[in-house]
Amino acid sequence: MAVMTVTLSMKAEELKSPDGNMVLRFEVRNGSPVYRLDYKGKPVIRDSRLGLELKDVDDLLTGFVLSDVQRSTFDETWEPVWGEWKTIRNHYNEMAVTLSQTSTERDMVIRFRVFDDGLGFRYEFPEQDELVYFVIAEERTQFAMTGDHTAYWIAGDYDTQEYDYTTSRLTEIRGLMKQAVTPNASQTPFSETGVQTALMLKTDDGLYINLHEAALVEYSAMHLELDDRSLVFESHLTPDAQGNKGYIQAPFNSPWRTVIVGDKAATILESKITLNLNEPTRFEDTSWIKPIKYIGVWWEMITGKSSWAYSDLPAVKLGVTDYSKVEPNGKHGANNEHVKMHIDFAAEHGFDAVLVEGWNVGWEDWFGKSKDYVFDFVTPYPDFDVEMLNAYAAEKGVRLMMHHETSSSVRNYERHMDAAYQFMVDHGYNSVKSGYVGDIIPRGEHHYGQWMVNHYIYALEKAAEYKIMVNAHEAVRPTGLSRTYPNLLANESARGTEYEAFGGSKPDHTTILPFTRQIGGPMDYTPGIFEQDIKKLNPDNHSWVNTTIARQLALYVTMYSPLQMAADLPENYLRFMDAFQFIKDVAVDWDDSRVLEAEPGDYVTYARKAKGRDEWFVGCTVDENGHTSEISLDFLDANRKYEAIIYKDAKDAHYKNNAQAYKIEKKKVSSKTKLKIQCAPGGGYAISFRPAE
Amino acid sequence: MAVMTVTLSMKAEELKSPDGNMVLRFEVRNGSPVYRLDYKGKPVIRDSRLGLELKDVDDLLTGFVLSDVQRSTFDETWEPVWGEWKTIRNHYNEMAVTLSQTSTERDMVIRFRVFDDGLGFRYEFPEQDELVYFVIAEERTQFAMTGDHTAYWIAGDYDTQEYDYTTSRLTEIRGLMKQAVTPNASQTPFSETGVQTALMLKTDDGLYINLHEAALVEYSAMHLELDDRSLVFESHLTPDAQGNKGYIQAPFNSPWRTVIVGDKAATILESKITLNLNEPTRFEDTSWIKPIKYIGVWWEMITGKSSWAYSDLPAVKLGVTDYSKVEPNGKHGANNEHVKMHIDFAAEHGFDAVLVEGWNVGWEDWFGKSKDYVFDFVTPYPDFDVEMLNAYAAEKGVRLMMHHETSSSVRNYERHMDAAYQFMVDHGYNSVKSGYVGDIIPRGEHHYGQWMVNHYIYALEKAAEYKIMVNAHEAVRPTGLSRTYPNLLANESARGTEYEAFGGSKPDHTTILPFTRQIGGPMDYTPGIFEQDIKKLNPDNHSWVNTTIARQLALYVTMYSPLQMAADLPENYLRFMDAFQFIKDVAVDWDDSRVLEAEPGDYVTYARKAKGRDEWFVGCTVDENGHTSEISLDFLDANRKYEAIIYKDAKDAHYKNNAQAYKIEKKKVSSKTKLKIQCAPGGGYAISFRPAE
Repeated sequence: MAVMTVTLSMKAEELKSPDGNMVLRFEVRNGSPVYRLDYKGKPVIRDSRLGLELKDVDDLLTGFVLSDVQRSTFDETWEPVWGEWKTIRNHYNEMAVTLSQTSTERDMVIRFRVFDDGLGFRYEFPEQDELVYFVIAEERTQFAMTGDHTAYWIAGDYDTQEYDYTTSRLTEIRGLMKQAVTPNASQTPFSETGVQTALMLKTDDGLYINLHEAALVEYSAMHLELDDRSLVFESHLTPDAQGNKGYIQAPFNSPWRTVIVGDKAATILESKITLNLNEPTRFEDTSWIKPIKYIGVWWEMITGKSSWAYSDLPAVKLGVTDYSKVEPNGKHGANNEHVKMHIDFAAEHGFDAVLVEGWNVGWEDWFGKSKDYVFDFVTPYPDFDVEMLNAYAAEKGVRLMMHHETSSSVRNYERHMDAAYQFMVDHGYNSVKSGYVGDIIPRGEHHYGQWMVNHYIYALEKAAEYKIMVNAHEAVRPTGLSRTYPNLLANESARGTEYEAFGGSKPDHTTILPFTRQIGGPMDYTPGIFEQDIKKLNPDNHSWVNTTIARQLALYVTMYSPLQMAADLPENYLRFMDAFQFIKDVAVDWDDSRVLEAEPGDYVTYARKAKGRDEWFVGCTVDENGHTSEISLDFLDANRKYEAIIYKDAKDAHYKNNAQAYKIEKKKVSSKTKLKIQCAPGGGYAISFRPAE
Repeated sequence: MAVMTVTLSMKAEELKSPDGNMVLRFEVRNGSPVYRLDYKGKPVIRDSRLGLELKDVDDLLTGFVLSDVQRSTFDETWEPVWGEWKTIRNHYNEMAVTLSQTSTERDMVIRFRVFDDGLGFRYEFPEQDELVYFVIAEERTQFAMTGDHTAYWIAGDYDTQEYDYTTSRLTEIRGLMKQAVTPNASQTPFSETGVQTALMLKTDDGLYINLHEAALVEYSAMHLELDDRSLVFESHLTPDAQGNKGYIQAPFNSPWRTVIVGDKAATILESKITLNLNEPTRFEDTSWIKPIKYIGVWWEMITGKSSWAYSDLPAVKLGVTDYSKVEPNGKHGANNEHVKMHIDFAAEHGFDAVLVEGWNVGWEDWFGKSKDYVFDFVTPYPDFDVEMLNAYAAEKGVRLMMHHETSSSVRNYERHMDAAYQFMVDHGYNSVKSGYVGDIIPRGEHHYGQWMVNHYIYALEKAAEYKIMVNAHEAVRPTGLSRTYPNLLANESARGTEYEAFGGSKPDHTTILPFTRQIGGPMDYTPGIFEQDIKKLNPDNHSWVNTTIARQLALYVTMYSPLQMAADLPENYLRFMDAFQFIKDVAVDWDDSRVLEAEPGDYVTYARKAKGRDEWFVGCTVDENGHTSEISLDFLDANRKYEAIIYKDAKDAHYKNNAQAYKIEKKKVSSKTKLKIQCAPGGGYAISFRPAE
C-alpha cells in the first residue's frame, strides 16, 4: 500500500454541508482521484485516494481526468416504519464527479453527499461499452487519519464480529491483535492491522469520527486495513472462495462509505446518515411489521441448563432417524409444558412473543460437522406440539417466535425456505430469528462476502412475501438496510449477551456497541439478565454476567432495537418483580431519542419518548469505573409533571460482587428537574416517566 | 503413490461369478485391504490396494484386520421403465468383508459383487461411535493393470467431458495429454496422466476391460490417475472449492466401482452391471415417463445461423431491461412463426416434441460473464408467445420441450426451480433439457464434485414432483442412476453432435462413445445431421460434419437413448425425405438389444427390437477406415419373413467429400439371411425390419 502525500490544489472541487462546517474537497491529481474532509476548518480525513483494483483488466485507480461535475441539494423528511425517531430529515449537498479514464475509455462516477454531521460517498459504474462485467480484486478507498487516534475496535474478520472491543491508539492495534482474536465457531481474521466497521475513533483534540458503510447490497462487506506507519486506513473487502472480492455488472452503485463527525460523542449516536443513504422501502404495505417485546426458551440452553437437542444421539439423519423411537435426554428445553409456562408468563406480563429454540429435529449434531442437510425447518421434535402450542399462544394473545438456525448450511436453508416460511404462516408465526453458526456452506464462502450478502437480502425479500419479520443472527452487520427492508427488525452480528454465559464480556462492552455495531442498525442484544452467577443455572458453567441488574434494565433504552428480549428465565424475574416492572413498561418504538451524555467506552445515557404516548424512558450504562451521571430532564414536556420511577444501582453495588443490589425510587419531576445518579462499576440506571396524575 | 507388490496368499477370500469364470480374491495383507480379479484363470486386475485418505484424522488405508465375511447370492429379474431390454437379470454372488482398524476402533466394510461379466465393489461406513463425520482427502482405490493396454480415453477433468477420444497405450497417455485437452467453456484438467471413466481398455490378448462407477449419489465423481511406471490406476475424486473430496456422515455407502470384463467387445456393451448396481426406483407412478423423439430450434443457433438472443444488447438485467423497447436483432431463432413451422413439421412426421432454445430473456449475456442472476426460466422474449405456441402444439398432438440453460449459476437455478417447473406444468411442457455451460457458481465448485452431484439429483427429485422428465447437459456423466430416477431420460455429458459445428469431431467418435460415455446411461447425442457443410447454414462457420448421412441414421440405433433428436433443420430433411424416413420409423424404446459386431474405435453394430412391436432396427457406425460389415439376421423371429429397408453409404461415399451419397434398398429377409454391407470411411448403415405382408 503506497503512502501518498497529496496536497490538494486550488483546483479542488469543494462541497460543503448545509451549515457550512463540513467541507469535502475532491481533485484528480496526477490522474488519481483524491479527497479530503475538513470540519470547522480542521482536517478530519487527510488527502486520501479512491478507486478500485480490478482482476485481469486495467485498474480503476489512475489515468483519470475529471470530465463532469454535477451538484444538487436535497432536503426531505421521511417517516420510518419503526425507529428511534418518528420523522427523519435527510438534508445534504451532493456532488457527483465523473472520472474518465482516457486510455481505456471507461468512466467512473463518485457521488459525494455532505451532511452537517458527516460525509457519504460511493462509486458508480455507468452503463457503457468498455465496462460491463468486471471482477473486483480489491477496493482501494483510503481514509487517511490526522493522528494516532484512540480507536474502539474489533479485529477485521470475514466470518465473525463476536469479539470484545479493544480500546487503544491506532499504532497499538498491531501489538494487541493477537489477544483481540478470541476463539469463535467460525472466524477468519486476515491481518494484524485489520479492523471492522463501524470503526469509532476519537482524536486527542476531542473530535469524534466514525467510519462505516451504508446500503450494503450485492457487494462484499468492507473492513479497514491500517497502514500503521502512515496512519492511513484502506478498504479491505471480504473475498469469496477464490479470493475475488466482487462480481459486478454495470450499471452499478457501490455501497456508501460514511464518515460521521462530531464535537460530541452524541453527534455520532444521533446521526441519521446511515439510514438516509439507504433507499426508501418499496414495500407497499408495512402494516404487518410491528416491534416485538419477547421472552424465550433460550437462555437456559445458552447457559447449558437445558439442551436444544431432544436426545443425546451422536448423529441423526433427517427423514431417516425415527424420533418416535429415540430416547429423550430429559433436558430438552423446547417441550410442551415448558413452552406453555413461558406463554403464560408472556401473556401475564404483556410480552408479544415467546422465542423457542430447539423445537425442530436435527439439533443433536447441528454444530461443527459441516453438515449439509442439517435442518428441514418444519419437523418438530416429538415433545413440541406446534399446533397445540400456537393455538394456546393465540388464545392468550401471544405468538411464538420461530427459530431458523441454519448452521450456515445456506443452500439447504434456501431449498427449504418457502416451505419454512409457509409453515410459519400456517401455524401463526410472523417473526423468525435466523442464525448462521459455523463456517458457511458453500464451503469457502464467508459470512460477509458478496455471496452471503446476497443471501441475507434474498431471505428478507422472500420473508416479506409471507409477511414475516426477520431477526438475523451471525449475518453481516447492518448498514441501514432496514430502511429498504423494514421487515429486517434486527440482527445480532456482534458479541451479544450470550457471551456473558460463555465466560463473560468486558463491562464496558455496552458503552461501545452503540458507537460501533449500532451505527448500522438495531441489535438484538437480548438483555435482561438478573442472575449473574451462571453456576446457579448450570453447575458446570462458571461464567459470570458482568453487569448489575440496574444496568440490564438500562440496556432496553441504550441498546436501541424494535425487537427486545427479556432474556433471563421467568423464575429469575419472579425473584425481582419490582425491577422487572421496568422491562414490562419500557417501549420498543419511539417518537424521539436523545443522547443525554456519552463517551465511548465509558458511559452512554439516552432518553427516548415512546411512540404515540407521552411516556419517556431513560437508560444509562457505564464501564468498570462506574460513573456519576448528571442529567437534565429538559426533554420532558414543559407543561406537565411526570412521575419518574428510577431503577439504580444500590450504593455499594458492583457488577462483580454485588450485582443484584438495586434501589427503586419514585419521584415527581418536571422538565426543570436535574438528576444526579451514582452508577456502580459495570452498572447504570433506568428511569420510566409517565404523566403524573 | 506407492507401488505395492502384494502376493495374495492362500488366506485370500474368494468370490466367484455364478458361472465360475470371474474370480475376485480379497485379503488383508500387512493390515491393508487388497483385491485382485481374474477371468478364466488369467489376471485382469493385479493385486490392488483399497481404502481412503481422510482429512485431519487417521486414514482408512491400513492397520486393518478382517473381522467378518458375509456371503450371499442374488438372482432377480426386473423391468426397467424404459431401456434397451424389456427385462434385466441381476445375478451375482456377493461378499461383504468387515475390516476393523484396531488402533482407531473403526470399522469399514467393502462389499463385492461378482457377475458373469464383471465386478462391482463399494465402501460402506457403518454406524459406529468412532466414525461419524469425516472428510475425504482422497479415495485410494487402485486398479492395477496387467500390461500396457490400449486405452480409449479423455483427459481427467473436473468440469468437462467434451473432449475427442484418444486411442493409445497407457504409457503414451502422458505424451498425448497436452493435445488431448482442447479448449472448453469450463475445464479443469488436473494431471498429465489423469483420465475419466468409463475407461475402455483392450489388452494385447484381446480381452476387453471397462472401469467405471455406478450409483454416484452424495459423493464426488471419480477419475483415474495412472502411475505410468507401475501401470496402476488410482481413483482421483473431484475436489470442492477447498480441495476436499467429500463430506461424509456415517452410515454411508460409497458409489460402486465397476470392472466389466469380456472376451468380446460386445460383452462390455451388453453388460447390465451398471444398472443392476443402482437402487430400484421408489417412484410409485411412472406412467408419466415416456421416451421422446423430437426436433428443435437449436442446430441453427449452434451453427450460428440464428441466435439464442433476441437482441444484440451487450448486457441485460432481468426485471430491469424493458424488452418491449429493445431492438430485435432479426436473427432470433425462437420466434412464433419459426416455432410454429417446427410444430407443423413435428406433427406431420410423427415427432413427440419440439425443443426450443432461446425462448426466454437473458441470452444476450448468458455466457462467459460469471453472471449470477442470469435467467429466471419463466419470462419469454417478446416474440415467443408461450401460451399460443403450447396451445398450437397441443392441437397438433405435439409438445414443446422446455430448455433451462442455467449458465452454471446453480443457486439462481435452485431459487427459481419450483417456479420454473410450475411454469412448465402450467403451459403443457413435460420435459426439459437443462444445461450447465460455464464455470460453476458457487465459484470454486466443479461440475463433478459432491456439491453438484447433489444438485443434479435435487433437480431430478423436484422434477419428479412435477412429473417432469429431465435431459441434463454438461452434468456429471451418468452412472446408472436412471434406474433410481427414471425421469432422468438422458444426459449429454460428453462431446456431442454440436462439436461437429465447432470444428468437427473425429470420425471414429461414435465407435468409442458406446464403450465409454454410454456405460453409465443414455446420451442425448442429437444426431441426424444431413448437411455436413456448415458454411451453407452460416457462411462464417467453416466446420464440416465428419459423417455420412447413412451413419447419421445408424446413430439412432447405436447411440442408445430414450430421448432422440432429429437435430438438423427441417429444410435439410425435406431435401432427403427418403433417408429421413428411417428417423421417422426408428423406435426409441426397446424390448431387446444385441450387439452384432463391435470393436472400440473401429465399428459398432447393434440390432434392437422395438418395444411391444415385431419390428427390428439395425445400425452400424464405423471409423475413418470404413468397414465391411457382415451380419447375420438370426435375431429375427424364425417363423416370419420381414421387409428390410437398408440405408447405406453409396459405393463412393466418404465422410469428407461425398457424405450425402447413400443408397436405399428394400429386401425381403428372414432369420436365416446374412448381409454384407460396405461402409464408407466415417460411414455406416441403418436398417428397419417389419413383418412382410
